[in-house]
Amino acid sequence: MTPLRIQLEANEIPTHWYNIAADLPTPPAPPLAPDGSIVSPEQMGAIFPGPILEQEMSAQRWIEIPDEVRQIYAQWRPSPLMRALRLEQALGTPAKIFYKYEGVSPAGSHKPNSAVPQAYYNKLAGTRRLTTETGAGQWGSSIAYAGQMFGLPVRVYMVKVSYQQKPFRRSMMQTWGAEVFASPTDRTEAGRRALAADPDNMGSLGLAISEAVEEAAADPHTCYTLGSVLNHVVLHQSIIGLEAKKQFDKIGLYPDVVFGPCGGGSSFGGVAFPFLADKIAGDKRAQKLRLVAVEPTSCPTLTKGAYAYDYGDASGYTPIMKMYTLGHDFMPPGIHAGGLRYHGDSPLVSQLLHEQLLEAQAVPQVATFAAGVEFARAEGIIPAPESCHAIRAAIDEALRCKASGEPKNILFCLTGHGHFDMASYDRYLSGQLEDYEYPSEAISESLKHLPKVGA
Amino acid sequence: MTPLRIQLEANEIPTHWYNIAADLPTPPAPPLAPDGSIVSPEQMGAIFPGPILEQEMSAQRWIEIPDEVRQIYAQWRPSPLMRALRLEQALGTPAKIFYKYEGVSPAGSHKPNSAVPQAYYNKLAGTRRLTTETGAGQWGSSIAYAGQMFGLPVRVYMVKVSYQQKPFRRSMMQTWGAEVFASPTDRTEAGRRALAADPDNMGSLGLAISEAVEEAAADPHTCYTLGSVLNHVVLHQSIIGLEAKKQFDKIGLYPDVVFGPCGGGSSFGGVAFPFLADKIAGDKRAQKLRLVAVEPTSCPTLTKGAYAYDYGDASGYTPIMKMYTLGHDFMPPGIHAGGLRYHGDSPLVSQLLHEQLLEAQAVPQVATFAAGVEFARAEGIIPAPESCHAIRAAIDEALRCKASGEPKNILFCLTGHGHFDMASYDRYLSGQLEDYEYPSEAISESLKHLPKVGA
Repeated sequence: MTPLRIQLEANEIPTHWYNIAADLPTPPAPPLAPDGSIVSPEQMGAIFPGPILEQEMSAQRWIEIPDEVRQIYAQWRPSPLMRALRLEQALGTPAKIFYKYEGVSPAGSHKPNSAVPQAYYNKLAGTRRLTTETGAGQWGSSIAYAGQMFGLPVRVYMVKVSYQQKPFRRSMMQTWGAEVFASPTDRTEAGRRALAADPDNMGSLGLAISEAVEEAAADPHTCYTLGSVLNHVVLHQSIIGLEAKKQFDKIGLYPDVVFGPCGGGSSFGGVAFPFLADKIAGDKRAQKLRLVAVEPTSCPTLTKGAYAYDYGDASGYTPIMKMYTLGHDFMPPGIHAGGLRYHGDSPLVSQLLHEQLLEAQAVPQVATFAAGVEFARAEGIIPAPESCHAIRAAIDEALRCKASGEPKNILFCLTGHGHFDMASYDRYLSGQLEDYEYPSEAISESLKHLPKVGA
Repeated sequence: MTPLRIQLEANEIPTHWYNIAADLPTPPAPPLAPDGSIVSPEQMGAIFPGPILEQEMSAQRWIEIPDEVRQIYAQWRPSPLMRALRLEQALGTPAKIFYKYEGVSPAGSHKPNSAVPQAYYNKLAGTRRLTTETGAGQWGSSIAYAGQMFGLPVRVYMVKVSYQQKPFRRSMMQTWGAEVFASPTDRTEAGRRALAADPDNMGSLGLAISEAVEEAAADPHTCYTLGSVLNHVVLHQSIIGLEAKKQFDKIGLYPDVVFGPCGGGSSFGGVAFPFLADKIAGDKRAQKLRLVAVEPTSCPTLTKGAYAYDYGDASGYTPIMKMYTLGHDFMPPGIHAGGLRYHGDSPLVSQLLHEQLLEAQAVPQVATFAAGVEFARAEGIIPAPESCHAIRAAIDEALRCKASGEPKNILFCLTGHGHFDMASYDRYLSGQLEDYEYPSEAISESLKHLPKVGA
């Protein structure tokens, strides 16, 4: 039998995360206050605990994964690297296609890779409660799970329209013991202001962030958690790529190209950076390696955005960060891959793309679901809409290989399963799904509102 | 670190299924026609292909698993055996609790263990289309997946009320390319009759079986598939127990008690029979081993039913089988563990229970969800409502161990995840769930309608 699942032993879970900040060709641009001053650790300390801040700013190459975290990881890690042999056969490609499957976690995505250490370090630092925001609920459910693992109460501000229309991830969070509020709430100043202006406000991710941050800032024992974008989140996600490298070693192969869906950039950085480290170190196998971030054409941050300082949130409460951005008041259309609807991107991913060590490509929505269904029918697993973006790109690459006859090794990150996204598949299968191409003028418009500092 | 996940290599997937029919203390009672005559292979051949019929009637102890099936199994098998250390700690028990986790399959339950070989043997026998029925959709989605793996078109008759109220497993089946019909349909005689009598008929499992069987019987190239009860299904599920035994060997332990949820009996037989084989063979480690089928108090087939010949379906279309039954017209209340709402049980499980080599116990609904939530909060995985029955029994046993100080090894089968059952968790968490105890008089009443032959 051709080995389809390349599995590592529990004791092969990496002992350290990889921090690409140690290997950047040029120093990273620091987060700034809107007035141009560098944001101090004390200011960030109001919402993040010390160990997390340390990791956020660390330039240390390898950071040890605490035993307590590895113990929890061991419930589903090392995650499998799968050979998509049946997909290859269906495509008739000479390429070998592999996917790293992160849907095996209890929350069904890669998000717990960072939620678990974030909960652990908060517990260690004496935090007594976690807050966060969530849209469709992938991050919220992961932090609910992780908080429960360390006995930390969790409060999730869930965008009201999702709270009402997508109740099942809410139930999931509640099953794990989290309190879930439909945002805007009357619990915070930001929420009360929004409700005063419009009692029927259905919420937004930006507003939910404001509520979660406000609660954390107001209470010294409460901290805020974020599921992507920031350096420490990308650091934690490096476990994906580190395991994948071990798995490729096991079968004596090395990828020629790696695809990952890219919203805030943490899973993409997670799978890509350990391979990029080889390339930066001059490893011969990685000489021609391509690392490709795949985003929706409807939210083309990396492919049509500007590389500039901008706010991380829609309301302008956060520090400004140097990143690819469509402008913090860019409002992407309501596509089904909710995890990819973000105006900005990880500063690390952004810098490395800017320095041409990474690539980016955008794919339209309908074609991603077509790829997802093709994948499901060949491989069995029904992928999350976010993951379908990487699948689309991987299939297109495999078809190019078919045309050229090149037997490339293609790797993509299958970030999660689609069990909570079947309504989206329904829309696709019944022909109701549409593509959105964002007009360039609209992007130019929102880019006019970038903060002036560092622009 | 304490090893929490006991994982086997892909090449440790068992090469043979175990058939307990070879080791029965007394010969099994054959399926009969209602007139008392033994059902001929030719009669069964109208709806099942030859290789499946052969397995159904085989007394061979070990039956080889075809490479093509093991290749597909390898996508998620060997499934993990997990040590529930955090649950043990939460309970404060000296017992060691293990669970065999079958929710890692693409369809999210143990059902593909049999769906895959059923599709394979049908393909081999030249079958051109599969039919089946489904309630909430666990079996339907598994056979949709398996049919797709072997390029076999699948038609699923889905009980209309589920089709309308639980659309997500329907979407799952359609994503895998199956045709799904809301039963009753106007495609079959049985369906048309039901609709003529009541145009608003919302369907029942019995009626959906009739439609699927009728379509298979009418076309020589179409076969019917069943997801539990029959011997060949139990045979395929033996992979669960066979792997679990290897995994216990790896850590040098042996279970003292095994719990599994029991509806039609296939997953319970699957996990229990390979261990029972040790007991029958006089293996010292298995001398005191207890194997306990756990069912709902609302559908207490094994604990309050009669051991008698009865029909497998509600309408009386199937042969009659000797089994524990509540009477084929017994209508269990609409509990959330849809997979356990069956009036009868596997003839193999029934016979071995009757011969006191197995045990059975019934647990009430609300307590099963309480156990499910306790498990999810300790171990992370949100279990299917069916699985919660085994968890309830395992937790109760662990608490007895706490009282007595006995460090027993407890194993239960976690048959699937609850991602498609979050509405049920919602009802539990909001206090809306109820217990149903079926009145003994009602059972006595439905038992009056058993067929007279062999009674």
